[in-house]
Amino acid sequence: MKRITLLINCNDSKGIIASITSYIQQQKGNIVYIDQHVDREDVMFFMRLECEFSKDIFLIEDFRTHFSKTIAEKFEMTWQLYDSDLKPKMALFVSKYEHCLYDILSRYSSGELEVEIPLIISNHPNLEHVAKSFNIPYYCIKVTKETKSEAEDLQLKLLKEHQINFIVLARYMQILSSKLIEDYPNKIINIHHSFLPAFPGAKPYHSAFKRGVKIIGATSHYVTEDLDEGPIIEQDITRVSHTHTIKDFILKGRDLEKIVLSRAIKLHTKHKVMVFKNKTVVFI
Amino acid sequence: MKRITLLINCNDSKGIIASITSYIQQQKGNIVYIDQHVDREDVMFFMRLECEFSKDIFLIEDFRTHFSKTIAEKFEMTWQLYDSDLKPKMALFVSKYEHCLYDILSRYSSGELEVEIPLIISNHPNLEHVAKSFNIPYYCIKVTKETKSEAEDLQLKLLKEHQINFIVLARYMQILSSKLIEDYPNKIINIHHSFLPAFPGAKPYHSAFKRGVKIIGATSHYVTEDLDEGPIIEQDITRVSHTHTIKDFILKGRDLEKIVLSRAIKLHTKHKVMVFKNKTVVFI
Amino acid sequence: MKRITLLINCNDSKGIIASITSYIQQQKGNIVYIDQHVDREDVMFFMRLECEFSKDIFLIEDFRTHFSKTIAEKFEMTWQLYDSDLKPKMALFVSKYEHCLYDILSRYSSGELEVEIPLIISNHPNLEHVAKSFNIPYYCIKVTKETKSEAEDLQLKLLKEHQINFIVLARYMQILSSKLIEDYPNKIINIHHSFLPAFPGAKPYHSAFKRGVKIIGATSHYVTEDLDEGPIIEQDITRVSHTHTIKDFILKGRDLEKIVLSRAIKLHTKHKVMVFKNKTVVFI
Amino acid sequence: MKRITLLINCNDSKGIIASITSYIQQQKGNIVYIDQHVDREDVMFFMRLECEFSKDIFLIEDFRTHFSKTIAEKFEMTWQLYDSDLKPKMALFVSKYEHCLYDILSRYSSGELEVEIPLIISNHPNLEHVAKSFNIPYYCIKVTKETKSEAEDLQLKLLKEHQINFIVLARYMQILSSKLIEDYPNKIINIHHSFLPAFPGAKPYHSAFKRGVKIIGATSHYVTEDLDEGPIIEQDITRVSHTHTIKDFILKGRDLEKIVLSRAIKLHTKHKVMVFKNKTVVFI
Repeated sequence: MKRITLLINCNDSKGIIASITSYIQQQKGNIVYIDQHVDREDVMFFMRLECEFSKDIFLIEDFRTHFSKTIAEKFEMTWQLYDSDLKPKMALFVSKYEHCLYDILSRYSSGELEVEIPLIISNHPNLEHVAKSFNIPYYCIKVTKETKSEAEDLQLKLLKEHQINFIVLARYMQILSSKLIEDYPNKIINIHHSFLPAFPGAKPYHSAFKRGVKIIGATSHYVTEDLDEGPIIEQDITRVSHTHTIKDFILKGRDLEKIVLSRAIKLHTKHKVMVFKNKTVVFI
Repeated sequence: MKRITLLINCNDSKGIIASITSYIQQQKGNIVYIDQHVDREDVMFFMRLECEFSKDIFLIEDFRTHFSKTIAEKFEMTWQLYDSDLKPKMALFVSKYEHCLYDILSRYSSGELEVEIPLIISNHPNLEHVAKSFNIPYYCIKVTKETKSEAEDLQLKLLKEHQINFIVLARYMQILSSKLIEDYPNKIINIHHSFLPAFPGAKPYHSAFKRGVKIIGATSHYVTEDLDEGPIIEQDITRVSHTHTIKDFILKGRDLEKIVLSRAIKLHTKHKVMVFKNKTVVFI
Repeated sequence: MKRITLLINCNDSKGIIASITSYIQQQKGNIVYIDQHVDREDVMFFMRLECEFSKDIFLIEDFRTHFSKTIAEKFEMTWQLYDSDLKPKMALFVSKYEHCLYDILSRYSSGELEVEIPLIISNHPNLEHVAKSFNIPYYCIKVTKETKSEAEDLQLKLLKEHQINFIVLARYMQILSSKLIEDYPNKIINIHHSFLPAFPGAKPYHSAFKRGVKIIGATSHYVTEDLDEGPIIEQDITRVSHTHTIKDFILKGRDLEKIVLSRAIKLHTKHKVMVFKNKTVVFI
Repeated sequence: MKRITLLINCNDSKGIIASITSYIQQQKGNIVYIDQHVDREDVMFFMRLECEFSKDIFLIEDFRTHFSKTIAEKFEMTWQLYDSDLKPKMALFVSKYEHCLYDILSRYSSGELEVEIPLIISNHPNLEHVAKSFNIPYYCIKVTKETKSEAEDLQLKLLKEHQINFIVLARYMQILSSKLIEDYPNKIINIHHSFLPAFPGAKPYHSAFKRGVKIIGATSHYVTEDLDEGPIIEQDITRVSHTHTIKDFILKGRDLEKIVLSRAIKLHTKHKVMVFKNKTVVFI
């Protein structure tokens, strides 16, 4: 069987669900999962479908063309179609922190993450040994104010060469410029070490400590031009108290960062996240 | 518009979703929510649908008959149909503890719970003043070993008279006999003060204290003949430490009990819980 | 036995703990609990002691004088002494929301809160029936721009008359002026319906919804002149998703608000909270 | 400065705290942290002290002898004394699962865990490459029914040779016999993949799935002769729903296992756990 995943959003109107499900049936497909959401305020309809088709008769490109003409145009849909059997290609960007990198690579090596990781890009040489121990190519591209544009050109070239589908910033300590962001819209996942929108920007654990909060958090979001303001995919928190120093905040936060980031990666990998008006619909 | 909620389960097979959604469309209905789940192990299909129909032409009893013949029989469905505009009638059973009672009644009085509460039944007179302050009839029916059967007859009579749809045991400290349970299958909601299946039966906080656990919980479940073994609707937990006495466990536990019980009541009220093989499918 | 609670903070230096504990022993006291914290950054020492003395020979006012001269002056301590057997007197301020009020009063009526509640003050008549059902005097003092100063004079008069020790704003929808705040420094507890410092000010649930967060929170803090910027006593959170409307946020938030507020009240009541540099040390 | 950690428990009686703190002062020590707990039911006193002494005049063995005679005997204390600057030596036991191993070693390599890891012992060769990439000796000792006793002799020999202080079973899929347990009382830390006492023994995720729980957990405890019944050090939980398969339970559980196990290791390493009557006092 061939399995596909279909993500759809459009203005809500009567009969959309029935139209889509009937269409799939007419194409001899079987719906395996259906998830749907209606945003009442914006009158927007969102749907995620997983369907199976007999391999003998199904051609994904034919389906793409036919669905577009028959259904998508009629309802003026924004939609994506994915081959569920293809593993997306993920690029990892890191700097000097290793906890997220180890966490992602050990999940990858155990088969938990259904992705390919063709390369790791870093602005520092420090973590090359980690990449090496998992047999993944590691490209060290230094970034300074002067070389930033050049460095990003080089990064982009590598991403294109390896046909990267999405990028994960695993505590990459650089701000991306619009050049990269525009090429990967809602396809760059960042982990910010605070419970956004509290404590955006640099040194959030220091700010949290100073404010005397009793809970700290981590937030995984898609990168947009506005720093730490992109659509939130996942968040989680942990308790702290007056007994914890900033160093404790940082250590406790690391455990959050890696869990929250890996959850976001999995959701993205399975095409379970849809973005609308800087918010996400996450079909769990 | 008339809104209905449809709960369906049957053996999984191809084309079910399309059949149902097409049927709704043919009946001039609009699907507002659709939730579906397939249990791969048991090859069972579960669905919850909310649909709207024009009031002019829709008669719920006609729909019931027609759906049964056209769709339900074909797929050998187990199904229920609810008028979404009707508030279910809920009976509260209490003993001496007031925290769950106050919590439920203050939610009821603020309009948070979409139910009617025609009566409160207790085996003690202690909480009558609470019922009174919310203007709800309170029936004190004493229960002893000797009078248990008689007492349950009286309880059943009251439940029938008030056309009760489901029962909530808000820390009712009596074990129900099969007489009541059989009449309200998966319609009696209990709150057990532990993280089931840990610590079933009496005095779970004492057992949890003795075992030295670092987390205690509460579990809301449907009542079956097997004590504390019915299908779990909702659970939650809170942290404890060596500094907490049994009394602290009990106080902390109360906050869990009321939250967990009220969540279960809301899920049940909105027909979001389906039971299969002593487990629940909860469409959130 | 007479039990007292002693809260101490001062610059950290060698031998403080030994000095205090030896002093208590010399006074024939027995230390029942000792909690201590050192803020390394500010080199500040914090301690909470519970001690028992024989009733025959112990006079709390003598102890106060003697401790002050012998120990407190030497280390330049800031300190408070409480009679552990005296229940503090708490004033409740409410507006129209009843969930926190019901929650606090049902805990009070079950003996869970070790306080006296001599009065409830509101700017609306709506919740008088709740106060009445718990037999607590309810003062409705309307507050408009023009009458605010007058209203606060009246509030202060009532607070003084009833010898109120601390105030709880149980969703009181008015900003207090410095007149009240100065008279009750770190003695006015507010519940803010967001995870501060995210979403201060009005309508936090609306802002959280708009930002698309996956977790909402509630924060209990002492009131200072800076709105929603006082020392945080307690926080908690709950998960939300795209399926939740603003109304759902509000309902889920209420469960947080009442739990978080009641925890803060209990900590304050047992003298477990110390304030320093707009942060709290909470001895749990 | 020389820093020591002192763990004490004995029957509770008047004046213990003052006696100990005065003693430390007389010895020219400075108390840096003091944590204390009284178990009211068992009338037991527990204390953890961190003290600093001038390196010039302090000899830990002299202190040990003098404290024993002067204080410990008088109150019939059970007590331990640790040099806070010495990193304890930890042996890791693993089988085939790599998630806990990677997690522990990446914390170790980043300096987060203040231990030495002289060796890893396994009953399988599978994870040798992981050990190698962190430069830690890996001993593969096969265990069958027939060779179990022999294998444990060999393990014990290695543990003694490397002067191991405590053992961590990082998903080691073998039951230890009393030979090992008796030699390391409350010094073998296990991670069990359920919320104990629910689902002890084999395949807890399968049992949890079958029962239809809404929350799963992990438990770190000291190993005793009674399987999964040792003193609990730490627990945590995560939510599951009907949408999760057993495989999902296992993957979600892994994230719990590694976090909970690493927390237990840290608590043990810093001498923050005391055991009494099969329960733990954990000074956080």
